Amino acid sequence: MSSEYGKALKISVFGQSHGKAIGVNIDGLPAGEEIDEDELRVFMSRRAPGRNDYTTGRKESDIPIFLSGIKDGKTCGAPICAIIENNDAHSSDYNGFNVTPRPGHADYTAVVKYGKNADLRGGGHFSGRMTAPLCIAGGIAKQILERRGINIGAHIASVGKEKDECFPLEPTKEMFKDISLKAFPVINDTCGNKMIDVIKSAAAENDSVGAVIECAVIGIPSGLGSPMFDGIESRIALAVFGIPSVKGIEFGSGFSSSQMLGSENNDAFEVKNGAIRTSTNNCGGILGGISTGMPIIFRAAFKPTPSIGKEQKTVNLETLENAFITVRGRHDPCVAVRAVPVIEAVASTVLLDMLLEEKNGII
Amino acid sequence: MSSEYGKALKISVFGQSHGKAIGVNIDGLPAGEEIDEDELRVFMSRRAPGRNDYTTGRKESDIPIFLSGIKDGKTCGAPICAIIENNDAHSSDYNGFNVTPRPGHADYTAVVKYGKNADLRGGGHFSGRMTAPLCIAGGIAKQILERRGINIGAHIASVGKEKDECFPLEPTKEMFKDISLKAFPVINDTCGNKMIDVIKSAAAENDSVGAVIECAVIGIPSGLGSPMFDGIESRIALAVFGIPSVKGIEFGSGFSSSQMLGSENNDAFEVKNGAIRTSTNNCGGILGGISTGMPIIFRAAFKPTPSIGKEQKTVNLETLENAFITVRGRHDPCVAVRAVPVIEAVASTVLLDMLLEEKNGII
Amino acid sequence: MSSEYGKALKISVFGQSHGKAIGVNIDGLPAGEEIDEDELRVFMSRRAPGRNDYTTGRKESDIPIFLSGIKDGKTCGAPICAIIENNDAHSSDYNGFNVTPRPGHADYTAVVKYGKNADLRGGGHFSGRMTAPLCIAGGIAKQILERRGINIGAHIASVGKEKDECFPLEPTKEMFKDISLKAFPVINDTCGNKMIDVIKSAAAENDSVGAVIECAVIGIPSGLGSPMFDGIESRIALAVFGIPSVKGIEFGSGFSSSQMLGSENNDAFEVKNGAIRTSTNNCGGILGGISTGMPIIFRAAFKPTPSIGKEQKTVNLETLENAFITVRGRHDPCVAVRAVPVIEAVASTVLLDMLLEEKNGII
Amino acid sequence: MSSEYGKALKISVFGQSHGKAIGVNIDGLPAGEEIDEDELRVFMSRRAPGRNDYTTGRKESDIPIFLSGIKDGKTCGAPICAIIENNDAHSSDYNGFNVTPRPGHADYTAVVKYGKNADLRGGGHFSGRMTAPLCIAGGIAKQILERRGINIGAHIASVGKEKDECFPLEPTKEMFKDISLKAFPVINDTCGNKMIDVIKSAAAENDSVGAVIECAVIGIPSGLGSPMFDGIESRIALAVFGIPSVKGIEFGSGFSSSQMLGSENNDAFEVKNGAIRTSTNNCGGILGGISTGMPIIFRAAFKPTPSIGKEQKTVNLETLENAFITVRGRHDPCVAVRAVPVIEAVASTVLLDMLLEEKNGII
Repeated sequence: MSSEYGKALKISVFGQSHGKAIGVNIDGLPAGEEIDEDELRVFMSRRAPGRNDYTTGRKESDIPIFLSGIKDGKTCGAPICAIIENNDAHSSDYNGFNVTPRPGHADYTAVVKYGKNADLRGGGHFSGRMTAPLCIAGGIAKQILERRGINIGAHIASVGKEKDECFPLEPTKEMFKDISLKAFPVINDTCGNKMIDVIKSAAAENDSVGAVIECAVIGIPSGLGSPMFDGIESRIALAVFGIPSVKGIEFGSGFSSSQMLGSENNDAFEVKNGAIRTSTNNCGGILGGISTGMPIIFRAAFKPTPSIGKEQKTVNLETLENAFITVRGRHDPCVAVRAVPVIEAVASTVLLDMLLEEKNGII
Repeated sequence: MSSEYGKALKISVFGQSHGKAIGVNIDGLPAGEEIDEDELRVFMSRRAPGRNDYTTGRKESDIPIFLSGIKDGKTCGAPICAIIENNDAHSSDYNGFNVTPRPGHADYTAVVKYGKNADLRGGGHFSGRMTAPLCIAGGIAKQILERRGINIGAHIASVGKEKDECFPLEPTKEMFKDISLKAFPVINDTCGNKMIDVIKSAAAENDSVGAVIECAVIGIPSGLGSPMFDGIESRIALAVFGIPSVKGIEFGSGFSSSQMLGSENNDAFEVKNGAIRTSTNNCGGILGGISTGMPIIFRAAFKPTPSIGKEQKTVNLETLENAFITVRGRHDPCVAVRAVPVIEAVASTVLLDMLLEEKNGII
Repeated sequence: MSSEYGKALKISVFGQSHGKAIGVNIDGLPAGEEIDEDELRVFMSRRAPGRNDYTTGRKESDIPIFLSGIKDGKTCGAPICAIIENNDAHSSDYNGFNVTPRPGHADYTAVVKYGKNADLRGGGHFSGRMTAPLCIAGGIAKQILERRGINIGAHIASVGKEKDECFPLEPTKEMFKDISLKAFPVINDTCGNKMIDVIKSAAAENDSVGAVIECAVIGIPSGLGSPMFDGIESRIALAVFGIPSVKGIEFGSGFSSSQMLGSENNDAFEVKNGAIRTSTNNCGGILGGISTGMPIIFRAAFKPTPSIGKEQKTVNLETLENAFITVRGRHDPCVAVRAVPVIEAVASTVLLDMLLEEKNGII
Repeated sequence: MSSEYGKALKISVFGQSHGKAIGVNIDGLPAGEEIDEDELRVFMSRRAPGRNDYTTGRKESDIPIFLSGIKDGKTCGAPICAIIENNDAHSSDYNGFNVTPRPGHADYTAVVKYGKNADLRGGGHFSGRMTAPLCIAGGIAKQILERRGINIGAHIASVGKEKDECFPLEPTKEMFKDISLKAFPVINDTCGNKMIDVIKSAAAENDSVGAVIECAVIGIPSGLGSPMFDGIESRIALAVFGIPSVKGIEFGSGFSSSQMLGSENNDAFEVKNGAIRTSTNNCGGILGGISTGMPIIFRAAFKPTPSIGKEQKTVNLETLENAFITVRGRHDPCVAVRAVPVIEAVASTVLLDMLLEEKNGII
């Protein structure tokens, strides 16, 4: 019953979409780490809405305000609390969802759980907006990792049935940088344009569409992680499912591996430039929960945005009669577009947490 | 760095495949719960090898011995420790894996992490054999849940490209029972026979094959779980990735939802027999991390067994030269077949843990 | 490495004494709990300085600002984040403590741990000021408990060698109320006046003095807690030692019990008005880590305020030469005076956490 | 609700006094640590009863059997599970305690909590016998620490009103060794003999007596620990209160500091042989929760053994009538005598846990 994850590095997200502020408490960062606030704002702007015409028209000025944990631009060892003040909230758009819950949303489950005290305005604590503070934590973690030669990148791997290229066997930080600069973060823009068409045509129908995001982490040395319940997959999966709308995760060849033979899926070891690596990376850089030294690769499936302008069937919770609902408000037709930095943020915090826990010479 | 999961109910697995014993410590069960040891043995026998000709020829007498926590056949409130003594271990089969690691196995990462002290015999603590103690914990949790009208069932959803039927919108406990009695646990035996053929033909080539297991939980009331990092998806995913060879997990329509429109994927609410339910269950019974009251549905992807009799490329870790390896020993050509009760076990423990945490009248 | 405690109810304190704000994140409160902000301010004012002439002359306007977790004056189930903005900070008073650390303070250990990034201004994250956010959490917890008939009270049990009376076998909430209204919170004012004299005479010598606070909790039913490491003593002790300057804790007869015979210390059971109780309460209401139903009683020892105006020996950490230091600034001559509500706050949060974990019908 | 403590190093104790076996699961030890089983048995024998005529006449053959986690005498990185088989149990001695609970014991609270399923035989999971598995974990941790120059020693500081000398400012490992070899572990044998007289005279009266144990840890470098709730005091206190019969703990001057002036209690810093230290150690080696580099000193108060042969008042829980009870069975007249190694064990595990968490070059 907690909005927190992490062991050596605890990330606690607080706030409701239409409350006074949302924010994050980050407990466990080492002292002396510089926070580049400009770079952090650039990172956060990748998540911000309104960058293009296929995301929500809401304006969110996601400027983090640091309340604690920083002295002279560096971490001082105490917890960092950072907040984002809320504004531009149209609470009236959300009236009534506690009576006629939106299909695909947490309105119904929130009412069951919290009763009439549930704060459903803007999705409350269930809102995708909660990923903004996640990006503060993730942006900081990313900077700390990059200083140690660990880089994280993600792209939209598919929207509907349209697919981007996959990351190559050994993606580079330059590739990550390139993608991050794009308004529509894909590897292959031709593929990207087809995806944009899918999003636009869904939006034109007052509908939405699902997507997959692929993430790669390079520079993690071999030996990080643990067998069983504290492996890299377990740790990343726990946190990624904390992102609203994620319904699946796979590592390396993932679900495809279920259709493969062992001789196809096993990654042969080889020596290259004096170092041990695998000639393929179907395991996604993880064997027995522990990093192999190859890139860590995972993909997260995002369902279509549940808030759509089409009329849908629902139930009136007070009368227990069937009802219809049309969701107004300004919603992304494809949540995944803005979730790319969120996935990077989560991967960064989880891996930094694991590195801090093991302190194997890197940090 | 821990072989433990759970909050109110902590499950700690210990043991190495070829050590003196493997076992589990279960801390947090309520007092007064009867343990039906016969039923538990039946449950465990579903995981045991040697039931048919497409699983390993090893014999494992998985008889749990209870060291603590039980008085007069009932839990007494103190932690339950149960062990399985090891025997029938051919350690010599595993010589050399610390020098020429098996592709797809944790030999290499274990050596990087633990050095020459790694216990690789039989896969050590990384072995699929560690799922036997998981089944002790899970079998007990399952009994406790069933007494409260919560039932858990799983089946092999696919092997290679051959698929079983999916669970219907509302599976029943009788259906679960039927499947559990089958040597090859599927819904549709015709499909099952095709899967068996796939396994046999892989085995005939000294190869192995991947698979997917689908799990359903019925009887969980609406309102269990939490938004963000303590939702049902996060909790189940963490534990399921603790099962060796799992490389992906999805809930409800999962990865398919990424190819759907919102209007297709959203589950409409409706009133049926005076109760609120959804007319489809693409969300897998979970919205905002919280149960809707519909069946909880998830699928786990298992990679093909990495140990195969075919010659594979590897590296000699001492000389840093390329090498070849042929894995002998008695291995399942498809690990997922015996993993069906393991998935049920993990789902049972996680949900019991969550119910114990929330104590919302059920337990 | 964490400024957090609690299991079902997580309390995370953040901030440095002279940062932008200090605050607390409270994760796990049930929804629908009313927060009486007036009562909370009254509670917090008991900790505030400047109420009399034997506490620091600093002014701290400890007004909590709630950023999240509350809707229409009630908890909504999401984490509550509340902050107190800092002002009236004289950072210049603290220059140089990273070079010539104050005896009895954490300056030296902070520098060893965090290096030059340590924020020592006002004691940074080590400051007694961190107990203000603790009081926000504790004040809320106290209100929730009181609504269930559980009351918490504390008094100054001794200052130097001067002692107050002890709580009687069955203290009442009226007694708690009375004490809480006093500027110097004791049971017997005659004793209190002697204590005040001790404090004043220490202050007159630019010195400080230690004290003991006794706390009682009434209304906790029997059966709360666990044997071994999750008992009431363990849980309370962990949190109480998080209060700066606490160096000892004892439950019931505590250290005195070490000088007693079993026949003296054992509390006989008896039936009174149809209920089981003990005729004495040397166990402090706890047997085997579990509540007996009698009042929970503990005492915490506070060392004398380390910041004193007398010249003291220290070391110059840069030159490694002996040095002298005279601490200026406005310090309490006896930290315990303002710590009485802090002790109540910690006891309230810990017991609410345990009640939430067990949910045995009370909450 | 857990019999586990620790973060990087998790110690889970299981078993009931009269069950099949008691034991401990130790999760998180680094690989490659040698376990000297002979030395471990010597350590455990210090806790064993029957060494002299002022401890219980029970025989407990506390031989640990290692089930997992060890390969060729060294840790392999997997959890260590070790058990002690139970025998010599006279269950019949304990009949009826669920009806007429023993004063000072957990019989009553166990019955309230677990109902008729409580296992009270021999104290069940509440028994002092649970400290034997603690000593397995602690004995291993102690060996690992000693290899890094960290030594732990404890002695009986007082029994009733008779006191031993205190540890000097800088105790040595030779001193610890000397004390550990004594049947009655004190610094000054003359004091010890007086204590023995107190114990014998209590025993002669069918009574028992309380005691205090003092523990010192040398070799912990400065900088270990954290401010607030993860400081050394919090961590040690949590675990020490897990030992049955402990009712108080204090660090350094502890409760005495409450009677001191700041100028008396503050420890002046000084340079000695080029190193920074304090000329006194009233803070017990801990400032702000973090180690100073001086010895860590704490004392734990043990109440008198509650099981006494004298007739005591109790209540019949079935009839709710007053009753009398005389506890038979073989009980230590002073539990603290055998608890000296237990205190060392707990201190060792907690500090090893903290060192593993911080991995600051020592481990």
